[in-house]
Amino acid sequence: MKGQFKPDHLDHIGIAVADLEEALNLYERLGLICEGREEVPGQKVNTAVLPLGRTRLELLQPTQADSPIGKFLAQRGPGVHHLALAVEDIEGKLRELKEQGFRVIDEEPRPGAGGSRVAFLHPKGTLGTLIELVERS
Amino acid sequence: MKGQFKPDHLDHIGIAVADLEEALNLYERLGLICEGREEVPGQKVNTAVLPLGRTRLELLQPTQADSPIGKFLAQRGPGVHHLALAVEDIEGKLRELKEQGFRVIDEEPRPGAGGSRVAFLHPKGTLGTLIELVERS
Repeated sequence: MKGQFKPDHLDHIGIAVADLEEALNLYERLGLICEGREEVPGQKVNTAVLPLGRTRLELLQPTQADSPIGKFLAQRGPGVHHLALAVEDIEGKLRELKEQGFRVIDEEPRPGAGGSRVAFLHPKGTLGTLIELVERS
Repeated sequence: MKGQFKPDHLDHIGIAVADLEEALNLYERLGLICEGREEVPGQKVNTAVLPLGRTRLELLQPTQADSPIGKFLAQRGPGVHHLALAVEDIEGKLRELKEQGFRVIDEEPRPGAGGSRVAFLHPKGTLGTLIELVERS
């Protein structure tokens, strides 16, 4: 039987960028509008959020080279870094997925942008696409 | 002045996969449900579509190694291949973006999955994220 886990929608797409201003300019030329910027110290990034229907793009510029996004940029260059699934009860959902055999990067949720709580699954188990769970209050 | 181009929502996220069955199994374990499969000869892929809120994941398995997705897999491995923006009047939107200086892969729309018409922007101008325009009838 498949699990009960069911994400509600795509919360956001995280896109690694080297230069936040340059990337904002690009996406504004593509008709998107920045609704906010935030530094997320726990992930060592400066972010800019651009809504797109019910989902949004999160542009992620590392504040330190020695950070997940900094390393991603160095290894692969800019581009899509992760997909974030919107969930309720993130602890319960993490537990369900672990029981299903998913490996996780975050055993417990940690603070994300905009007051959210987030946890990443381990990409070794998700065929090359890094997947984040996000609970918003 | 910024252009008038404004996408309505995120039509889909294209994800390159080596094995469609393995990838479907993964995303079904993540609570998504496949709503259809289709071969798209023009893009040399077999696709499976999984709705996620108003957007959807399109899993893309190449039917030939010598194809855009086949080459992507060989060079980078599986993972997010492109983001698709939903638009109306794809010819007009393509023209607007070209007038703004965007380079395009497709000068004219071509057939996509599900009877859609699609055109890709050139990734050299979009900071590492391949962007597709999609018009659905």
